[in-house]
Amino acid sequence: MKTSTPSTTTRGPAEHDLRDQIVAAATEHFSRYGYGKTTVSDLAKAVGFSKAYIYKFFESKQAIGEMICSNCLFSIESEIRTAVNRAGTPPEKLRAMFRAMTEAGMALFYDDRNLYEIAATSATEKWPSVLVYEQKILQLLRDVVQEGRQTGDFERKTPLDEVVMSICLVMHPYLNPLLLQHSMNYSDQAPTHLSNLVLRSLSP
Amino acid sequence: MKTSTPSTTTRGPAEHDLRDQIVAAATEHFSRYGYGKTTVSDLAKAVGFSKAYIYKFFESKQAIGEMICSNCLFSIESEIRTAVNRAGTPPEKLRAMFRAMTEAGMALFYDDRNLYEIAATSATEKWPSVLVYEQKILQLLRDVVQEGRQTGDFERKTPLDEVVMSICLVMHPYLNPLLLQHSMNYSDQAPTHLSNLVLRSLSP
Repeated sequence: MKTSTPSTTTRGPAEHDLRDQIVAAATEHFSRYGYGKTTVSDLAKAVGFSKAYIYKFFESKQAIGEMICSNCLFSIESEIRTAVNRAGTPPEKLRAMFRAMTEAGMALFYDDRNLYEIAATSATEKWPSVLVYEQKILQLLRDVVQEGRQTGDFERKTPLDEVVMSICLVMHPYLNPLLLQHSMNYSDQAPTHLSNLVLRSLSP
Repeated sequence: MKTSTPSTTTRGPAEHDLRDQIVAAATEHFSRYGYGKTTVSDLAKAVGFSKAYIYKFFESKQAIGEMICSNCLFSIESEIRTAVNRAGTPPEKLRAMFRAMTEAGMALFYDDRNLYEIAATSATEKWPSVLVYEQKILQLLRDVVQEGRQTGDFERKTPLDEVVMSICLVMHPYLNPLLLQHSMNYSDQAPTHLSNLVLRSLSP
């Protein structure tokens, strides 16, 4: 399966497909039976690959979970990004961001509790996928704030970094899977109330 | 021990003292050995009262936990209230509130993990003590916002209820023991950043 190139990170398209196949099968299996209790042996048996074959592609169960989590957060990020792009003005983009983030998180929590648990594990253990996700959302937020400063919708006195960091802290309970499960009671009102408050704080 | 008055809620001072004694002994015991795993029998043995005697005053372990939690949250509330009263202007009071709430929560978490766990249990199960605590903090916040509206420090356009509710949502991760444990990473910067953001949102 290995290519003859010296780099160990370069993989042929076939290897890539096989990895994807394992991840897809593992996603389905974890989604049905949970991540915590399943071992790589269970997984191998269930998906019809040998354990050795799985270890050829992934060094551990966490490496598979990491990939699933990464896909899952990527799809949440895409939903948030789509909502932001659809919105017109920077204030509307900010509202859309709060709304989409809460809805996507809730959907994951309610519709796919086992995948949600992988995301929560990843947040507890600070897996790279969660850090990457948080960084991407931070960058998206920064773009929206910067655009609003250019259009004159948002104030320009406060340093940009400070504004972005503080809004990110406000978003955190709805962004991070670990906190999200404890923020459910407020999930219908929170996006509106919080984006209103943030927009008041941004008014020029 | 019972008084001759017809009301079952009226208790003589002696009964009150005995309840306090049990709660004090239980607090020490839970603080050392944890709440989750301890039964009322364990507790009775450890504090030197009979199980029947404890049940005379408390109908369940949760009722004792509820009282411990209530004392614990009352002391946090007092710390927050003291900090607010010490601060001069309404904006300073708001800053003091964010700071005191985070510090008191952190202190509980780091210095008395077992009592923190009782508080977390109470938040998961929505015990009355937590709801009372949240209501009191909400009222304190409302007073500060109202004072700031009177002094002209804060804007008066947005309905008071909406302002108070939205600030409360911002405070929630630092107020609620369940969320607090996941907000630790941000606990040194968050009070400043969040109170700055809230103050910007309140500017007239």
